[in-house]
This record gives sequence, C-alpha cells and structure tokens, in this order.
Amino acid sequence: MSLDAVRESLIRQEDTIVFSLIERAKFPMNSPTYQQSKPCVGFCGSLIRFFVSETESLQAKAGRYQNPEEHAFFPDHLPPSLAPPHTFPPVLHPAAASINVNNKIWDIYFKQLLPLFTVPGDDGNYASTASSDLNCLQAISRRIHYGNFVAEVKFRDAPHEYEPAIRAQDRDALMKLLTFEAVEEMVKKRVEKKAMIFGQEVSLDTTNSTESKGKCKIDPLLVSRLYDEWIMPLTKFVQVEYLLRRLD
Amino acid sequence: MSLDAVRESLIRQEDTIVFSLIERAKFPMNSPTYQQSKPCVGFCGSLIRFFVSETESLQAKAGRYQNPEEHAFFPDHLPPSLAPPHTFPPVLHPAAASINVNNKIWDIYFKQLLPLFTVPGDDGNYASTASSDLNCLQAISRRIHYGNFVAEVKFRDAPHEYEPAIRAQDRDALMKLLTFEAVEEMVKKRVEKKAMIFGQEVSLDTTNSTESKGKCKIDPLLVSRLYDEWIMPLTKFVQVEYLLRRLD
Repeated sequence: MSLDAVRESLIRQEDTIVFSLIERAKFPMNSPTYQQSKPCVGFCGSLIRFFVSETESLQAKAGRYQNPEEHAFFPDHLPPSLAPPHTFPPVLHPAAASINVNNKIWDIYFKQLLPLFTVPGDDGNYASTASSDLNCLQAISRRIHYGNFVAEVKFRDAPHEYEPAIRAQDRDALMKLLTFEAVEEMVKKRVEKKAMIFGQEVSLDTTNSTESKGKCKIDPLLVSRLYDEWIMPLTKFVQVEYLLRRLD
Repeated sequence: MSLDAVRESLIRQEDTIVFSLIERAKFPMNSPTYQQSKPCVGFCGSLIRFFVSETESLQAKAGRYQNPEEHAFFPDHLPPSLAPPHTFPPVLHPAAASINVNNKIWDIYFKQLLPLFTVPGDDGNYASTASSDLNCLQAISRRIHYGNFVAEVKFRDAPHEYEPAIRAQDRDALMKLLTFEAVEEMVKKRVEKKAMIFGQEVSLDTTNSTESKGKCKIDPLLVSRLYDEWIMPLTKFVQVEYLLRRLD
C-alpha cells in the first residue's frame, strides 16, 4: 500500500463514477422509484430503499463487505458472507470500521445531485433506474471511504507531521495538513475532461466530429462540481475522522 | 417505434456494453466466483449462479421484467412485480415473449469471452466481480434481444418483402433479408473506436497523450470480435426466430 497505489486507485475510480453517472442519465428522473408506496405492497417505503437494502443483503452474502473498501448504506442486520473465504491484508487501523458517511452520501445523491443530471420524465424502468442509482452510490461511497486508505498512507509517510494534531484532536489542523488546493484543482479538471471524453457521441464520421463534440451525455461541469462540493470534502472528512482515531 | 429510434437505442447500448466490459476488466479473473461450492454453503452450485438468480429475483420484484426489452437468465419462478405499475406500449408480437437466448449468452460469456478480457488472478472481490458480470450479461442480453424490435420495425417497413419467407418458414431467406454486411462492418469499427476512447487513460498532460494512447483498459479488437462473432449473429438469430412467428 503505497501513495502511488492509492493515487492510481483514486484515478481509476473516477472512471467508474463517470461511467455510472452516464448510465444513470440514460433514464429520466423516474420519480415513482423514490416515492413512498402507500399502502405497503410487499415492502414499505420507497422502491429505492427496498431495492438497495435487499441488494446489499444479497451482496453481503456474496462477501462484498469483507473488503474494507466497501461500506453498506443499510449496514444494520446484514447477513454473514457465504462466499469463498479471502483474507484482505490488514492495512487500516480498526477505527476505520466505525466510519460510515453513507447517510450523507444518500441525501446528497437523491436530493441534490440526481435532479441536476437527469431529465424529467417517467419511462417505467424503475428497476433499471434503481440498479443504476446503486451503481452510482456504490462508486461514490467507495471513493469517499477510500479516504481511510489515503489518510493511512499519508500518516505512515510522515507520522511526526500528524501526531501533534491527532493528540490535540485538532480537526482544523488536520484538515489543513490534508488540503492541497493545486491537487484538488487538477482532479476537478481531470474528471471534467473524463466526462467530456466518456460522454461524447462517438461517430465514425470524422467530418462532423466538431458538431458532435457539443453533445455530451452528462454535463462535464456537473461532474467537476460533484467532486468539488461533495466528493472531495467528504473524502477529507473521512480522512480527518480516521486520523483522529489513528493513535487510539 | 421507428427505425431511427431503434438504431439510436442500438448505438447507445454499445456504450453501455463497452462501459460494463471495462468495469469487469478492473478485476482479475477471480475464479472462486465461478467454481462449484462443495458442500452447499447457504447455496448450492457456483457463487455466480446464486448471485445472478437471486439478483434477478429481487429485480423482478422491482419490476425489471415488465419491460419487454428485459430477459432473465433464470426466468423460471420469478416473483411478481411489486413496483408502481407502468404500461409499456405493446410494440411486439406476443411470440417475442417466448424467445430467450440467455443460455447461449451465459455460455459464451463465461466460457469464451471472460478469459479473453480479464487477467489471471484473485483479489477476493467476488461479490463486486459477480455484480460486474451481471452488468455485462444484462447489457449484452438486452442488445441481443433487441433483435425483436429490430425485426418488428423492419417487418412493418416492408411486410411484403418478409411475408413469403415467413410463410415458407425459410430461415435462410430471412437471414439473407436481414443481413447488411456494410452496416455490420461499420458497427464493428464503431465499437472498436468506442473501446479505444472509453478505455483510454485520460490525463491532463497533453504532451504524453501519444504515450498513454497505447494503454487501453480493454482490447478494442476484442470488442469488435464480440460483436462480429457473438452479438450480431445472435441478434440476427433472435430476429429470424421472431419473424418466423410474426404471422402466427
């Protein structure tokens, strides 16, 4: 687990996030996916809650949450893994297991992000919509909770830099140590470029490539904003939470 | 439902297929996902079978198979939909409901395709691997069974061309009517280009863009071959099966 490996994973995860957003944008808003069903029809609450909690339960049986990179949105009462056993190398301090910001991610995704990158409408594909939402949520959640690994690698690289702030439980000092504005600007530009490249209409006709360059399946500036306002701040929040407990 | 709308959907589905293959290629082969578990541990058979059949069962409850574009890999004993009702416009002849080539797709995907585009190895992410496999399978299956819509639109466009071959139940004649080699060549080239564009390492550094152009997350020629050897022939098979029953 080196800083290079962590960086490479973060960069690769950007592609996954952009792909998943483009795939969700294929469907319109499909609001019946999110409305409370009354009366309860086999499940209570919204289809998306039912879908995500049941899928997580199944994926827990398939061993998803054995990997410390994965965090459930409904972590209570998950069944044990039935999958072939695999030992993930113990990289993180045990405190990482108690850090889960998926409640925040859930709220941001459904209340703020989704209305910005889907068009209004209802095409009836509620299951596919919920499945695409879950892919987005899982990709964003993995990226944000990867903050644990980022923090661990940074700490191991220079423990003397972090220890005073950790002992003082000084959030602001830790946040300062973890913030590199030039890097954040670069990340925002890179994900914007990825959205442009992965969201373009690819045509064999090279003559009208300029014409098709205008169309994009998802607004690149929105992906940059997603990173700026939500993903990077929440990743740093996870990093600070982790470091505060790193010496426990 | 026009020929243009069908074409647009087919082109958009190419992106989904390429994205899903790139996402699966993130993981190594992870063969424990596919091995028979002995003894039965909460499920019998392979993890992938358990995972796909259980996910399909959940997605059926969420209404996935209400849409005639969707076909399950384990269609027997699927539970009824609990999702908000939605009426999909009745476009297809009822015979379409009995056409399901997912057994073939399953065999091709796991026996032929998967070993070609994953690297050997085991990183323990069996649940994420199975989930990525299911995304690939669903995207490929939707594309192939979209042959029903393609055939319906072609038939409506020129029923007099197809009726003699349908009445004679002449598969070869139908296959000839449905085959346009120039179009197939164009599709192969376009999906190859998509794999190249969507699978590239995107960097802000424009000076070494030629260097990074060599790297691609998935072999573009493999995607072209997937279309050439499997997707397009199976789509035409579905079209022929559909047309043979179109006048019933």
